[in-house]
Amino acid sequence: MAETALERVRRAYTRIAETGRPEIWIDLRPQADVEDEAAAVDARVAGGEHLPLAGRLLAVKGNIDVAGLPTTAGCPSYAYLPDADAPAVAALRAAGAIVLGTTNLDQFATGLVGTRSPYGAVRAATDPARISGGSSSGSAVAVALGLADLALGTDTAGSGRVPAAFNGIVGLKPTYGLIPAEGVVPACRSLDCVSVFARTLPEAQRALALMTRSSARPESRPARRPGPWRVAVPGTADLGPLAAGWAEAFEATAGRLASTGVEIGPIDPAPFLEAAALLYQGAFVAERYTAVGAFVEKGGPDLDPVVASIVTAARDLPAHRLFADRERLAELRERAMSLLGDRDALLLPVTPRHPTLAEVAADPVGVNSDLGRFTNFVNLFDMCALAVPAGQVDGLPYGVMLVGRAHVDDDLAAIARLLQPAVRLAVVGAHLSGQPLNHELTARGARLLATTRTAERYRLHALTTDPPKPGLVRVAEGGAAVECEVWELPAEGLGDLLAALPRPMTLGQVEMADGANVPGFLCAPEGLRDAADITSHGGWRAYLRSLAVPGRSAP
Amino acid sequence: MAETALERVRRAYTRIAETGRPEIWIDLRPQADVEDEAAAVDARVAGGEHLPLAGRLLAVKGNIDVAGLPTTAGCPSYAYLPDADAPAVAALRAAGAIVLGTTNLDQFATGLVGTRSPYGAVRAATDPARISGGSSSGSAVAVALGLADLALGTDTAGSGRVPAAFNGIVGLKPTYGLIPAEGVVPACRSLDCVSVFARTLPEAQRALALMTRSSARPESRPARRPGPWRVAVPGTADLGPLAAGWAEAFEATAGRLASTGVEIGPIDPAPFLEAAALLYQGAFVAERYTAVGAFVEKGGPDLDPVVASIVTAARDLPAHRLFADRERLAELRERAMSLLGDRDALLLPVTPRHPTLAEVAADPVGVNSDLGRFTNFVNLFDMCALAVPAGQVDGLPYGVMLVGRAHVDDDLAAIARLLQPAVRLAVVGAHLSGQPLNHELTARGARLLATTRTAERYRLHALTTDPPKPGLVRVAEGGAAVECEVWELPAEGLGDLLAALPRPMTLGQVEMADGANVPGFLCAPEGLRDAADITSHGGWRAYLRSLAVPGRSAP
Repeated sequence: MAETALERVRRAYTRIAETGRPEIWIDLRPQADVEDEAAAVDARVAGGEHLPLAGRLLAVKGNIDVAGLPTTAGCPSYAYLPDADAPAVAALRAAGAIVLGTTNLDQFATGLVGTRSPYGAVRAATDPARISGGSSSGSAVAVALGLADLALGTDTAGSGRVPAAFNGIVGLKPTYGLIPAEGVVPACRSLDCVSVFARTLPEAQRALALMTRSSARPESRPARRPGPWRVAVPGTADLGPLAAGWAEAFEATAGRLASTGVEIGPIDPAPFLEAAALLYQGAFVAERYTAVGAFVEKGGPDLDPVVASIVTAARDLPAHRLFADRERLAELRERAMSLLGDRDALLLPVTPRHPTLAEVAADPVGVNSDLGRFTNFVNLFDMCALAVPAGQVDGLPYGVMLVGRAHVDDDLAAIARLLQPAVRLAVVGAHLSGQPLNHELTARGARLLATTRTAERYRLHALTTDPPKPGLVRVAEGGAAVECEVWELPAEGLGDLLAALPRPMTLGQVEMADGANVPGFLCAPEGLRDAADITSHGGWRAYLRSLAVPGRSAP
Repeated sequence: MAETALERVRRAYTRIAETGRPEIWIDLRPQADVEDEAAAVDARVAGGEHLPLAGRLLAVKGNIDVAGLPTTAGCPSYAYLPDADAPAVAALRAAGAIVLGTTNLDQFATGLVGTRSPYGAVRAATDPARISGGSSSGSAVAVALGLADLALGTDTAGSGRVPAAFNGIVGLKPTYGLIPAEGVVPACRSLDCVSVFARTLPEAQRALALMTRSSARPESRPARRPGPWRVAVPGTADLGPLAAGWAEAFEATAGRLASTGVEIGPIDPAPFLEAAALLYQGAFVAERYTAVGAFVEKGGPDLDPVVASIVTAARDLPAHRLFADRERLAELRERAMSLLGDRDALLLPVTPRHPTLAEVAADPVGVNSDLGRFTNFVNLFDMCALAVPAGQVDGLPYGVMLVGRAHVDDDLAAIARLLQPAVRLAVVGAHLSGQPLNHELTARGARLLATTRTAERYRLHALTTDPPKPGLVRVAEGGAAVECEVWELPAEGLGDLLAALPRPMTLGQVEMADGANVPGFLCAPEGLRDAADITSHGGWRAYLRSLAVPGRSAP
């Protein structure tokens, strides 16, 4: 359980090698360097320092500066070597996160597909025939495959949400300006946001909190109307063509929200979708020329041809058309906000479908445009958004998106939490409240449901692990009730917990005093060798007290 | 004193005819129509309705809709006939203001000179060899010449301030969005503000208050640091070339502010002036093409050639350059705001000089650009501004400008008030506190200095006027002290008061109990015929009480 940063790094490099997805990375740091950094984090933690992200493994999109790694933006000949981390990266590192490397992306963050890169097309985490989505392709897949805990992306039109949805993870596109955008190669500077990928919502939220600069933007959020959350949900008939089964999945998601007490109401999505279309059909794309036009015009063998043609075509868009588009956008925004009213969020699918690599190759621009149908408007309207997994369709991850006005980032997360499947977990030792590993639960958004006892069918042993842990074992006879706590944990957090579970600990069903079975921590037989039976104490905490050792300092 | 709206309208039409400045107007309404409207206002007031602008005469810039008059924007072939008043106009009319007509402007509000119009060049109010300034040329001169009390302009780059300064009146450029811009022909829609011209600051402020829509913009003004006003004043050496005597006039104005207790501190104006240059040298001008480019491209005999060339040239400005300019502007703004800090305002000249018509004809674009040196940045930086008269140089009006962050409009007015020359005024009758005409003082920003008595050298008479008024007369012997109030009034308000003064009332020196002489209301000899001597009552209010008639209902 108490895996060190160094152990986590070693495991990550093994997994990276085993996974066979080299296209995820542009520059993976030398393992020895990362191990040194991890050892330093471990030393700081051992020295009593509190590092909220100690040992969390971070992947950084290749258009964000990491000191000492080239910033390529997906184009080797564009690369420069930054002296310093981007402030977003620096904030996570200061909290103990360990950068593994930079990740692949649609060149110059121009694309929602993940295929527009001289470093290779990135394939979806669970279906290599399908695209990863982009532009933050490598970051999303690194997290989805468990190679990293956390990744930074960028999001201008959906680059932080589309690949989250395609790979079954959380993609958080915060309010513009919350996370500093310094040290990021601009795509459309007036729209670009640094975004966060994680497998769990609390992990993404924690990262956002650490990166948010207080002075970023004056908080201008109006007070929320009290009462239950209210979410606007368009009818699927108004959303345009959706992949088979996706309309049903969307409706089912809305139904699940409603079943938790959220007030669901209809909304006409037309002005939102019209604004989305304006992003690529209008003059806004000229901002990409402002960012990299001069470079692209010079030509180069490693320019992605689709990206180069998009950027070059943006050269001749007239400024007067941009002003006209902005006026049109303002009208659409006014209509859209009026339709949204004072409701807390808008629920939308993230994309209309999940294309294959072959489909994108056949129509690189058309497929890409369609992927932004639901995401493009968000930054144009100065809104925030959160893409979260919402089950599967045909064995592929299916994601939905909550969208809200600027500064309601936390509200979106709170609503999204209601969509997360939760599991209960019975704990008897170091994860109990006040015990040293309890933070592994709370950091994953767990909450305590009950302090209770097991059925009278268990024995508790003091294992000879370091640190000491109890081993709970079910017995045919002579069993007793053992003190335990039942926690509720977002199911998405369970995978992490299991992945980091050290021998001889196991997870399995634990029978409660009321006869119910709840998954919980058990012990493999090998752990019981030389382990003293401490059942008579009634529980781990009582045993610790009997040793006259405070629980916190020597668990 | 109690001039009716109808009387004011008749006087205005007489003055308009006498003034011989037909170029001020594009469409002056038929006098009979306006008289009907005035009579209706008089009837409403007589019926007890409170109309804060009852009978105030309003001129409206020709790019703002007035129901029933063509909106020309200074181009006859562009004209359309609006069904309804622009909301700004409607708000003033609802408060009792009476529209005289629409005024001349630089075509499509493109210019700061007042000469770019097929309706003729507008000349400065006090020097016909010099330009009026623009683009709100006719509105400013109509107010300056006393033909209207109040006028609406628009301000994108300085059009509401430059002509105010050149004509010795107040030009108020409010925070963007405070006044609805619907019903206004756009120049640069994202920057355009409706502006206010008046001879007095309170009149301009009252109009602004009536036109401000509460929902216009979320108020995002940070709390002010307590203490005296703090104003940033650049050194004149940093402002570029100024007309002879103008640097001295500017410094003298700063000195006057300092003498009233305002904390004056230095500031580097460079980022402000650089942003100003960006407005015309950069791609922002393309927004004018968005507004009227399609119309101008069609050609037309009544297009102003300078305006047409500016608009047409804006067609080919690329959108990517606009994005680059916006980035540059954002950097300049950040530097500028950091230099301004938490000070309340920035003091600047309105223009560097006041050109002649001949100078503009010789170099129409160059002179125009130079006139915007100090005004152009304000709208680009989302600031508000107030141009106020600050004396004269070589017999011509000289104006300064206070500039502040969005939403500090009222603070700017409060600071500007300190610059206004004030006069004291002794009142003994209907202008006393609580008496029916007291509002004529308060509406002009007057404040009560003292309730006192005259020297023992006066007699008070009850005149046979309708409504009844007292007549104060100085006598050689047998005089008494009469109750009076001394008010302080912005000097700019005195002209109005005098212009509306009905026979037999006069203004002249009144000797106070302490021997000081204060200008005040007196009475011409003809008024004393059949007037009862009421000196023994000690004052007008005591006399009214003796009649057992409440002061308010029968003054």
